[in-house]
Parts: sequence; C-alpha cells; structure tokens
Amino acid sequence: MTIQAILFDAYGTLFDVYSIGALAERLFPGRGGALAELWRDKQIEYTRLRTLCSTYKPFWEVTQDALVFSCRKLGLDLTLDAQNALMGQYAKLQAFPENREVLQRLAGMGLKLGILSNGNPQMLESAVEAAGMNGIFHHILSVDAIRKFKTAPEAYQLGPDVFGLSAKNILFVSSNCWDACGATWFGYSTFWVNRSCAPVEELGVTPDSTGTDMRDLLRFVEKHVGEGK
Amino acid sequence: MTIQAILFDAYGTLFDVYSIGALAERLFPGRGGALAELWRDKQIEYTRLRTLCSTYKPFWEVTQDALVFSCRKLGLDLTLDAQNALMGQYAKLQAFPENREVLQRLAGMGLKLGILSNGNPQMLESAVEAAGMNGIFHHILSVDAIRKFKTAPEAYQLGPDVFGLSAKNILFVSSNCWDACGATWFGYSTFWVNRSCAPVEELGVTPDSTGTDMRDLLRFVEKHVGEGK
Repeated sequence: MTIQAILFDAYGTLFDVYSIGALAERLFPGRGGALAELWRDKQIEYTRLRTLCSTYKPFWEVTQDALVFSCRKLGLDLTLDAQNALMGQYAKLQAFPENREVLQRLAGMGLKLGILSNGNPQMLESAVEAAGMNGIFHHILSVDAIRKFKTAPEAYQLGPDVFGLSAKNILFVSSNCWDACGATWFGYSTFWVNRSCAPVEELGVTPDSTGTDMRDLLRFVEKHVGEGK
Repeated sequence: MTIQAILFDAYGTLFDVYSIGALAERLFPGRGGALAELWRDKQIEYTRLRTLCSTYKPFWEVTQDALVFSCRKLGLDLTLDAQNALMGQYAKLQAFPENREVLQRLAGMGLKLGILSNGNPQMLESAVEAAGMNGIFHHILSVDAIRKFKTAPEAYQLGPDVFGLSAKNILFVSSNCWDACGATWFGYSTFWVNRSCAPVEELGVTPDSTGTDMRDLLRFVEKHVGEGK
C-alpha cells in the first residue's frame, strides 16, 4: 500500500461532538441523549434525501432543519435561544484529545493531510480554528463545491482531484462506518475509527482497516506506509 | 386537480407491518420494539446508501442485511430459524383493515390504481396475494426494474411511464413522509397517510395533502376528483 495522503471526515472523526449532547441534556434534562441521537440521524437522513432528489442545501441549514424536526418529534419546546445555543456548538467543537498530536506526527512523516466533509466551508473553518488545527491541513474540502453530500461519488471524487493522486493512494479516515464503506466502494484505501465499538455495517463491503481511536490510525500508518516505500 | 390514477407505496401504506414487530417481541421479549424500529431504519438507510453509491441489490436482500446488522447491534442472537421467521413475515402481511374497501371504491370511480415500491417483484406479488388484493391494481411497479430505490427520480419516473400520464395527474400515496416529500419534489400530486400522527419532515417541501388513514384518502379523492372533472 502506497499511502501518500490522508483525508479525514470531520464531525465525530476529528471533532468531538460530545459537547452537543451535553448541552442538549442541560437544556432538556432527561431528553438530551434522545435529542442528540435523533438530531444526528435526521441530519444524515436529510443529506441523503436531498442528494438523491438533487435538492441540495448547505449542511448548516440541513442541520438546523434536523434540529427543528427532532424537537417537534420529541415534543420539546425549542426556543430561539436554545436553537442558537445548540447550533452554536458546531462552531466550537473540541478535537478528540489524541488528535492534534497524531495529526502532527502524520504530517511529520511527509504525508499530505486533508478534510473531506459534508460541512459547508464556513462551518469547517470555525471548527478547525476552535480545535486548534490551523495550518495542519493542505486541503479542507467541502461537498458544498459540488452540491451533493457523501456518499455520492462526486463528493468522494474531490479528494483525488485536489491531491492529484488515485483514490487507492489516499487513506480515507472516518468514524462513521457508512462513510468508510462509501469511500471503500469509491476506491479509497480506508480506515474506520470505530470509537463506539459498533458492529460493521452489513453493506457487503468493509473498511480496509479499523481501530478504536486515532492512535490506532497512527500505528497503522507507521506500519504500512513504511512497508509501501 | 385532475387525478386520473393513484399510485401507492406498499409497506406501511397498503400492508400493515405491525405483525413484524409483534413477532420480534415474541422472539426477543422486551426487545421486539427496538429491533423492529432499528431494522426498519437500517433497511431504509441501506437502500439510500446503495442508491447513492450505485451498488443496488434487491430489497429482500437489503432487508435481510438490515436484520442481521440490527440484531448484532442490539446484541440479540439471531438464529437461522428466527431470521427465516422474521423475513417470512414479509410474505404474509395483512392489509390495513380499511384498505380493501377503499381501494375498491377508488377503482369504482374509474381511477387506475398501481403500486410503486422498493420491494422486489416477488415480495410484492406475495404481499398483494396475502393481503387479498389480487386484481385490484393495473400496475405493480418495483424499483428493481431500474435498480435504484426511492427517492431517486428514476424510481418515481416509473409511474408516469406506465400510466402514460404526467406526474401531476397521478396521486402518489405513502405513509412515509419522506416518500411523499420525494414524490412531491418529483412532481406528483401527493397524499401522506400519516397513521402515526408524526410531524412533517423539515425538507422545505410538504405533501399536497394529508390524512390519518385510507378513509381520509377516499374522502379527499371524492371531493377533488369530482371538482377536477
């Protein structure tokens, strides 16, 4: 395997979305977990429906729509203040604790690093800054450029295009199994950061490799990039 | 509105999937509800991922994959017998109690009736027979013909093609709000059978009309088809 670049999913992979659930729990005691889970599911569902139906709108707006629906479904009174507070969390997510060091070590190995996310450019910019990751990435790619969300092939194609590499020579890293599977179908080398020890999706395809956090990714890359050279 | 044909979604709209949850509860006491819900969600999720990634396989197989994943996720031991029993339910679903009479009344008004479903042809054939609906439909359309699941436009296009009508002159009826929204985006006249009194999806589009069961559909059609003529 000759890996020359690594492309990361953003939310849940680089950026810890835990604080969203914690705030939801403070705003809606006893219901925060259910809200955070439904919100995330609906957010992803809406990206897929909009991509299938060619009715794209930016991830920020889709995320807001999903929040509104989820509160209505759960019978929670979403005030404008609560909505702003919850949406505002997206601008100040923290990195998972091990991430910055791992990213620096990967960059130190001469690998080019990038982000490929459903998030729109402004969201990603704020998130990278809040997580203290400025200057680490060669490319921050948003599907907004092609107005289709992952797992559309056009979204994954952004990576090979900007790196000037074939997908096989790019390691795509995601904590979402469906995303890692989509990228594998597309042709990337893939690594699934299975933080929650979830079972693999039954999609007839599996990520090329798996670990439970970014340190496992580092070990994997140290081993395999060395071999490839 | 000049409605000349009515196209129905199958599972949950014509056919009552309640028996699936009931059997799941008998097989996994205390967990049947969670299993039935996750299974349904995964089933739909896999149809979307496979359509986005052009990795179609028939609904029967997708449904089986979703069952296997769901049991693994919930830590339930899915024996082959249990799997066969649960999958077997799809071949013997009952019609919702009001459906047959409503369908006969609609046919009696000179409307052409059809089904447009993600289900593959064999599944649909068994379900129509089990529900005592043989001979009611002019067309039983499966997305299997074009190897993309709803909400892909190619799936919805099957309706206008076989009826030789524009989508606006066909009333698309579904109990799934996302399906009614997808059909509305496509251009159908739409009716959402909101059996569970769910909030409307926040997709920036709403079904043209809504009711809580098929009797409401009949009332709607009696009123509006009359006006259109």
